[in-house]
Amino acid sequence: MYIHQVAAYLPAQVITNEHFTRLNGLSHEWIIERTGIRERRKAAPGENTNTMAVEATERVLAQAPLFPTAAVDLIVGATYTPHDTIYTVAHAVQRAIGVTDIPVVSISSACSSLLNAIEIVEGYFAMGKATRALVVVSEHNTAYNNENDTVAGHLWGDGASALLISKERLAPTDLRMLDLITAGAGGIGKADVAVTLKPVEKGIVMPHGKDVFIHACQYMASVTRKVLERNHLSVADVSWLIPHQANLRITRNVLQSLEMPEERAVSNIDRLGNTGCAGAAIALAEQLDQIQTGERVVITVFGGGYSYGAMLLER
Amino acid sequence: MYIHQVAAYLPAQVITNEHFTRLNGLSHEWIIERTGIRERRKAAPGENTNTMAVEATERVLAQAPLFPTAAVDLIVGATYTPHDTIYTVAHAVQRAIGVTDIPVVSISSACSSLLNAIEIVEGYFAMGKATRALVVVSEHNTAYNNENDTVAGHLWGDGASALLISKERLAPTDLRMLDLITAGAGGIGKADVAVTLKPVEKGIVMPHGKDVFIHACQYMASVTRKVLERNHLSVADVSWLIPHQANLRITRNVLQSLEMPEERAVSNIDRLGNTGCAGAAIALAEQLDQIQTGERVVITVFGGGYSYGAMLLER
Repeated sequence: MYIHQVAAYLPAQVITNEHFTRLNGLSHEWIIERTGIRERRKAAPGENTNTMAVEATERVLAQAPLFPTAAVDLIVGATYTPHDTIYTVAHAVQRAIGVTDIPVVSISSACSSLLNAIEIVEGYFAMGKATRALVVVSEHNTAYNNENDTVAGHLWGDGASALLISKERLAPTDLRMLDLITAGAGGIGKADVAVTLKPVEKGIVMPHGKDVFIHACQYMASVTRKVLERNHLSVADVSWLIPHQANLRITRNVLQSLEMPEERAVSNIDRLGNTGCAGAAIALAEQLDQIQTGERVVITVFGGGYSYGAMLLER
Repeated sequence: MYIHQVAAYLPAQVITNEHFTRLNGLSHEWIIERTGIRERRKAAPGENTNTMAVEATERVLAQAPLFPTAAVDLIVGATYTPHDTIYTVAHAVQRAIGVTDIPVVSISSACSSLLNAIEIVEGYFAMGKATRALVVVSEHNTAYNNENDTVAGHLWGDGASALLISKERLAPTDLRMLDLITAGAGGIGKADVAVTLKPVEKGIVMPHGKDVFIHACQYMASVTRKVLERNHLSVADVSWLIPHQANLRITRNVLQSLEMPEERAVSNIDRLGNTGCAGAAIALAEQLDQIQTGERVVITVFGGGYSYGAMLLER
């Protein structure tokens, strides 16, 4: 299978670290040192997970004349910050693009959902039940975030991304998916309490950030090694690493474990904060034109709850 | 693929129609006439989507000596009433049963999620990435319901079900899955506004129940016909119809369209109300021992948002 095109949508409003200095007394330098985040985006009133997903979808389809809207035969949406759990992000996208009678589902495996969504697509392709899929990842973190939370309130940003995935190659520039691993790690460490979003109680909270940090570093490095090993490749064979965009210190820790130079990691944390399951897809959209023919990319993710994964691509 | 075992968990507290008579002045007779609901279950304080899913999982595994816990290699959870969108229902189940490093994901396609979850399993089986799956559907409607809502407050109940699904037959009593269709219908009618659960605004609301009713009747009948036609079967070849348990009037309307006698429909609406995506699975669990060798079952669902599906089983 092939990733044909990727696009991102970012809301216009920029929230700088100074906002949290005024609110909570956290200095720009303190936030930068601990997270690498300089600013993040915030959805406008009226925007939400569904509207951002539709924006990203319209952009990706506009960039893909070889992938006509009417050919879309599967939609997988992903979010842990739902606008509506019934009229889900995938259903809103279906309504916007006007395709009917195709499988449509939304998922959550927290920040790792991008790879779960793509693996579900892989399954539909394997069954012969689809050949042209639209994957949409969208997070409206600020809808659930408590800005006054001095522990994690400054981490989160909003954004969405849409990917067009086809069973057969459509263009020479398509990224071929060589391998994909996903797994839950719900039994590990403080997975049940470390980072949670309980909609009835409201709010994303991260009372055990250190537990998340340790496992994110460990799992993203180990699953990257695993996906490379089983394809008889080494870290030196990978041109670009796109980790989950949670925290620049996590990215640096993963790079160090893998003995990979920092310039090979794709990062948007400084500009966007943690955009949840959309983060790595937005990074792929932003990096897409820089990936040269023959270059390999690993996208590796870690989600609260916990779960992890790695996908190996080749242009 | 085969459904090996199914179990249900229902919270102990029973809420009768008299509760809504006291609260909102709705008479028992009025509720019965319009919905067929006599009573529904309500999760206790401390219970939620995740705990009910774990209860159902423990029951189904206890009933299945041929399907050891350690053999589970995929968990798909489903709910539109999440306790936690990060530590999701599937992750809580993974933690409870102690299996590691297997794909784990939670989904929502509203009340039709049972069939989406099983289709995702079908995909993992087709890829060769799993052979023994646990599907868990769980709804905590009362966590999001406004009991004072005279339009829909009396409809909802809580409950969960767990299904063990294997690629190969494990026992002569296993239900063979002959065919499965799922589809979104997000572009149809008032799919975007008819029934919604927006966690930030809280509450399940159904401002356009008539639109839901019309489409549920139409789609469940038509997709049942479709799944039968493409397997060269007729309604007479089906022993049991298990529709989404939303409203007895919808079930009767679907039966009438299909020219199927009422005694062939499996129904728990009177005792449980609308238990969302868990309803049809709970009904399957309750009916399981009554299905004779050679008999066929159709499970058909319709979800807000909208989406629909049908699955054809044979014992």
